[in-house]
Parts: sequence; C-alpha cells; structure tokens
Amino acid sequence: MVATAARRLARHEVEDLVRDVLRQRLTGAINPPPTAREVPARASRGSDVGPHPLVVNVSARHVHVTPADLETLFGPGATLTKQRDLYQAGEFASEQLVTLVGPRQRIIPNVRILGPTRGYSQVELSYTDGVYLGIDLPLRVSGNHDGTPGITVLGPRGALTLDRGVIRARRHVHMSEADLRYFGVRDGDEMKLRIDGPCGVTFDGVVVRHHPRVILEVHIDTDEGNACDIERATNMQLIK
Amino acid sequence: MVATAARRLARHEVEDLVRDVLRQRLTGAINPPPTAREVPARASRGSDVGPHPLVVNVSARHVHVTPADLETLFGPGATLTKQRDLYQAGEFASEQLVTLVGPRQRIIPNVRILGPTRGYSQVELSYTDGVYLGIDLPLRVSGNHDGTPGITVLGPRGALTLDRGVIRARRHVHMSEADLRYFGVRDGDEMKLRIDGPCGVTFDGVVVRHHPRVILEVHIDTDEGNACDIERATNMQLIK
Repeated sequence: MVATAARRLARHEVEDLVRDVLRQRLTGAINPPPTAREVPARASRGSDVGPHPLVVNVSARHVHVTPADLETLFGPGATLTKQRDLYQAGEFASEQLVTLVGPRQRIIPNVRILGPTRGYSQVELSYTDGVYLGIDLPLRVSGNHDGTPGITVLGPRGALTLDRGVIRARRHVHMSEADLRYFGVRDGDEMKLRIDGPCGVTFDGVVVRHHPRVILEVHIDTDEGNACDIERATNMQLIK
Repeated sequence: MVATAARRLARHEVEDLVRDVLRQRLTGAINPPPTAREVPARASRGSDVGPHPLVVNVSARHVHVTPADLETLFGPGATLTKQRDLYQAGEFASEQLVTLVGPRQRIIPNVRILGPTRGYSQVELSYTDGVYLGIDLPLRVSGNHDGTPGITVLGPRGALTLDRGVIRARRHVHMSEADLRYFGVRDGDEMKLRIDGPCGVTFDGVVVRHHPRVILEVHIDTDEGNACDIERATNMQLIK
C-alpha cells in the first residue's frame, strides 16, 4: 500500500482552490500545452566519426513566416529579433511568439517563430499537438504544402488565417556534401537513426536533406524525442 | 508563397476574441491537455501467428487506486463504475475522472481511473505530461514505486496527496503461458516491437510480463504511439 495523506476538503478550501485555478488560468500560469523536455544539442561520437559529429536535436512546435505574414502579425515593418542561435549557422529562435487557434477553438499560446523569414509560412506540430487542436496532421518534408490543412495564427497586431502549411515534419537529417560522401547517401535517401538508452528506439525513414551550407544534424519532433528519451541516450548512430 | 487571408484586427474584435477565449477556458471548453490519438485495439496477423493475435494498445495517461483512496476522492462507499471494457478480461475504464495537480501548480483534468481497484495507487503519465506538470518521471514497471515522486489528486469529494507512485510505464507485453512458449521467452525478458508504416519505428526493451489470465497485448504510451503513428501502421511484429 502506498502511504497517502488524505482528508476531506472543507468548503472554503475547495473555493480557494477553484479561485486559484481560475486566476492562474486567466493569467496564463497554468495549462499552456506541454512542451518538449529541454533537450540541449547533443553530440555522439561513436563508431560514426565522420566530417561532423552526429547531433540529434528535438524540434518543439514552431512556426516559419514570410515577411508579409510577419507584418500582419506584428505590424508594419516588423522584423524577427534573435533570442538564441540554432545549430545551423544563420538559423535562430526569434523572440516573436504567436498563438495558434485550431478548428475546435482550442488554442496553443507562446509558439515561437524561427528565423530568418522564408518564402512560405509553415506551422510544424507534433501529433500530440494535432490531437489537441483537432487537426489531422499530414507528414511532410518542409515546404511541401500540397493538400495540407491551414490554421489561424494570432499575433499582437493582427490575425492571419493560413489556408495550408500545417504539418508534422518528417524525421530528417541535414547533410553537407562531405556528410553525404561519408555516409554514401544522396539527397532524398532514407536512413535509420538508432538511439540506445533506457527507452531505446530505432527510427526508420530519416530523410537525407542536402544543403551546401549545413552540417550534420538530425531533427526529430517532441513525440519522437520523448518516446526514445533522447535526454538519457547513451549512444546514437545513423545507419544507411 | 502561401495564400493567406490577412487583415488588422479591430479593437472590438480583439476584445470579443479574448472574451470568447476566457469564457471557454472557464467553462473548460479549451485547454484540456492533449490526449492520445484515438487508437482502437489493433490486431496484426503477420508472420507471427501465435496462440493470440498481436494487439498493440496505446495507454493514455491514467490512474489506478486503492479502495481507500477511491473513497477519499469520491466519498465513503464509492466504487468504480464501468465506462467500457479493456482488452484484458475484467479490466475496464471507469466513469470516474480525477484532476492531477503537479508541483508547478499546473493541472491535468479529466484523468480516468482504470478498474478494478488495486493494492496500490499509481499515476501513469507520458514524458510529455511530465514536462507539462514539472515532474521528472521515473521509468518503471507497474507497482515498482521505490523512489518515485508523488502528486496531488483531486476528486469531487476530496483531495489525496500520494507520496509516490507517479511513473512512466515501461513498454511491456502481457503474455499467457501459451504466448511465452510460442515466443520462447520468460517473464522479465525484453523483446523488440517493430512497427512498419509511414513513421516506422523499432522499440527496444519491451518487457515481457506473464500472468495466467492475460492474453497477448503490447502496451505503449501516447508519446510512443504518436512517434510511430500506430494508427497508420501497416505491420507489427514482436521480435525476440
């Protein structure tokens, strides 16, 4: 038997509790949706010591925007300001946050825009987020928006209704030319990512994405990062 | 460029929107935490046609309680009433719901108690839930509560502070004697679970749990179910 501290609540205690909960909800102190475990960039230098260390990062839900959409949300002339650098040179988490409103009128506040601005606006969510919002997320590579659902995005200066661009991003690995050569793969190929540890998992279908100015980095989402407990991984390996 | 419907919000529109959101929050219409995708019991009859079909079920967050803790939450003489049967004979999702209050004062409402009552109380959460509540969840087999954290549970008739029993359940597979023989494994062994499909994954460390009155059933949590998109799995296989 588990030891428990149990007693009946007095009426004034229940009232105090409800009042506290309501106050906290109204001030946003409770019930923002779950976020990823805090996952720092991790490097594993196992058997695969290539031109760059193997880094696996967990992408929490985030938004990309066009310059025009940014102005709609944050006002004329708005620009993204840097909160912190991301792993790839030039990429950054901005200080700009938006609120997503799904088709069931549920909202997810405090979703970060990643910079710099792009030629398309895109909302990347986990399936956990999709269930919450009531959106059946298509699995896509970034930028492939054919047949994808839309969403309403709220900023401090305006609202934006995207008619498409809401996706779960496919697991992928960014590679430089040297990384492609090292692993013997080409842009668009699929690899496996093996995670050893207390919640060991092998992910299939990690899409290789080549770009001349990136270095080796795997992106998985929060469902995937939590499923394999990436924080406590003891080894990581990309397998052709 | 993505087509967007964008305009500046008028002040009264913003006020209406905020009023709607607050009203919905207060009435509980928005911001309950994410839940699992709806995953029906699934049977795969692939190469492993043993004494029972391979069924993989996703366990959403839930609670087990002792009879005494149930009375604390729901009042003297309270019993669990059945909402629906679960896959194992005698197990059921009850109609009784509780609210969890974590150490950061965040709450998760509408968490279902599974019946029948047990000799211990236990709260099973995903890591996504743990991040939200601010609890670093230990990975445990059901009932192993040494060194596990506690939580406050609210019912309609009282509050209960468990001093331990909050866990992420280890991936496991329930097996009858015939299932053990078929797979050539013993209670406590670890197997792999291979999920084929658009988000294919192989899970390591699926713990075999033998009980004379169960039939073959794998339990994974919502992070794991979402990571591998179990809904769209094309094949499933247990590997020794």
